[in-house]
Amino acid sequence: MRTVNAYGAVSATEPLEPMTIERRDVGPHDVLIEIDYAGICHSDIHTLRGEWGPITYPQVVGHEIVGHVAEVGSAVTKHQVGDRVGVGCESGSCGECTQCLKGEEVYCLKGNLQTYAGLDVDGTITQGGYSQAIVVDEGFVLKVPESLPLHKVAPLLCAGVTLFSPLKHWNVGAGTNVAIVGMGGLGHVGVKLAHALGADVTVLSRTLAKQKDGLELGADHYYATSDAATFEKLTGKFDLILNTVSAGLDYSQYVNLLAVDGTLVILGAPTEPVKIDAMSLITHRRSIAGSANGGIPITQEMLDFCADHNILPETELIESSQINEAYERVLSSDVRYRFVIDAKTFA
Amino acid sequence: MRTVNAYGAVSATEPLEPMTIERRDVGPHDVLIEIDYAGICHSDIHTLRGEWGPITYPQVVGHEIVGHVAEVGSAVTKHQVGDRVGVGCESGSCGECTQCLKGEEVYCLKGNLQTYAGLDVDGTITQGGYSQAIVVDEGFVLKVPESLPLHKVAPLLCAGVTLFSPLKHWNVGAGTNVAIVGMGGLGHVGVKLAHALGADVTVLSRTLAKQKDGLELGADHYYATSDAATFEKLTGKFDLILNTVSAGLDYSQYVNLLAVDGTLVILGAPTEPVKIDAMSLITHRRSIAGSANGGIPITQEMLDFCADHNILPETELIESSQINEAYERVLSSDVRYRFVIDAKTFA
Repeated sequence: MRTVNAYGAVSATEPLEPMTIERRDVGPHDVLIEIDYAGICHSDIHTLRGEWGPITYPQVVGHEIVGHVAEVGSAVTKHQVGDRVGVGCESGSCGECTQCLKGEEVYCLKGNLQTYAGLDVDGTITQGGYSQAIVVDEGFVLKVPESLPLHKVAPLLCAGVTLFSPLKHWNVGAGTNVAIVGMGGLGHVGVKLAHALGADVTVLSRTLAKQKDGLELGADHYYATSDAATFEKLTGKFDLILNTVSAGLDYSQYVNLLAVDGTLVILGAPTEPVKIDAMSLITHRRSIAGSANGGIPITQEMLDFCADHNILPETELIESSQINEAYERVLSSDVRYRFVIDAKTFA
Repeated sequence: MRTVNAYGAVSATEPLEPMTIERRDVGPHDVLIEIDYAGICHSDIHTLRGEWGPITYPQVVGHEIVGHVAEVGSAVTKHQVGDRVGVGCESGSCGECTQCLKGEEVYCLKGNLQTYAGLDVDGTITQGGYSQAIVVDEGFVLKVPESLPLHKVAPLLCAGVTLFSPLKHWNVGAGTNVAIVGMGGLGHVGVKLAHALGADVTVLSRTLAKQKDGLELGADHYYATSDAATFEKLTGKFDLILNTVSAGLDYSQYVNLLAVDGTLVILGAPTEPVKIDAMSLITHRRSIAGSANGGIPITQEMLDFCADHNILPETELIESSQINEAYERVLSSDVRYRFVIDAKTFA
């Protein structure tokens, strides 16, 4: 066991504060990672505030983690001391079910181990990446390509793979019409990835405030969803719509933008039920699907793809003392486009 | 023009009655079909009663049509006088859009021509198969394999392809776990088709009243959805659920029965919006889709498949004078499993 500095919440309603947490001893298959940077994901806020169900406090969050290997267990073969590595939303899974055997650990049939607020095999609650160091099973540690600057990589571990996984699963490439709903932490990475995959990319954002950014990041088209004409003009256009907005939408409007055999994928979970007009699905063989982040192989593929295509999130680097302020700015969409915490400032 | 006997409705509320309708002259690409049998589809009732929107009366319905070719146009190459043929839900489409060029005429981007209650190119409203004869473009006339008895074939033209098309589109075969929701006109054909494709087939019906039939027709399992334990026991089991029930269901319950990457396909359109818990889609990458009947190539493939596998609907043959009584029995699910009208009785 070792004690490390961290930043976490002691209740659903109080600001985050400095604290210390315990990390387990490095087991035979474990890797000790000295964390360099941790991204701030909207999920962190939902979780800490109990919006996705009650949690146990104190709780440290963060599942966009990059750093370097400081120690490896006796049986570790995938990583070496000094390696640049990352950890995402999952830190464990059963390893035996059909999903795990396919490398789809995120869909483990026995339930995977979340990097934070998860119940670990030893009965403890996992603590996330807003901290100096973390101990993770080597199978859930990603290799970060040398060409990617560490302080920019962190958001790829959640936001990146959450977009890359459905883009690949639904076979996006040249000739595919893709819409990204929401131009935020997830959406802006989606624009870059879909563009690099060769798709024709449209951003559907509430307003045109971020239009210039969107077009610079790779979007071919940019429309405001506050303008009713958008929904008329784009009817039947998209093969794939990735919805990154968890606030409730009028889903029927978006379903009508799908081409025959098109799919709308929900990435951000609204709290109310999604309502859809079935006839609009039937007449065009349209689908509505959900997608979580991604298993370990697709996460590694995403990191390598980003290195090959020079894709990095747009980030704002902050110190740990700025986390609470950053949360408020995330909630008011006042960030372009992802906060990354410098882990040195947990010292 | 020729006048033929038929059976139709003069209003949304009155019983159907004998009438005569006009059929156009046989054009160069047309086939005149002397109708032998016409199936009764639930859609016929919805349409005539204005439940899917207002229609023009008098209206003759019927889109499960089999007969033999009595005359062909000068340019017809696909069919000859005397051929056993069928006509389904669509009798025309633009022929030029990407969907038509793929043989997916049912999803024609300009809107296909419905066999009844459709607006034909000459401005007339199409009249369906409850009649002695029909004139149809040769491209929308199916060949009925010799081995299939005509009086049983009719329901395949709608019910058959409505089930076969999604079974093929979602790659059902050996090792696939398929559930058919509803053991009626559509569902019972789905059981036979899915079984013949090699799937493990489960019927989900409100009660166990038709369990014996279901198992005899090819189902491997049969569960009552009125029993809450069904939904617990089958959680996460199915790769594909085909819902043939247009009455409103608690869709979230059914979505939870899907495996990772499973799809629930809506074939019967409920009038109210479908409500779904998005988290249940996200955590298992599940989908909800819709599917219409099928284009001409898949309809022909279905007929040939049924001939190869000796698949026929379970039918009850009636005379035209029994149509109104049959409608009442359809509405009270008192039919095993599809009514077929003997077209001789239109004489």
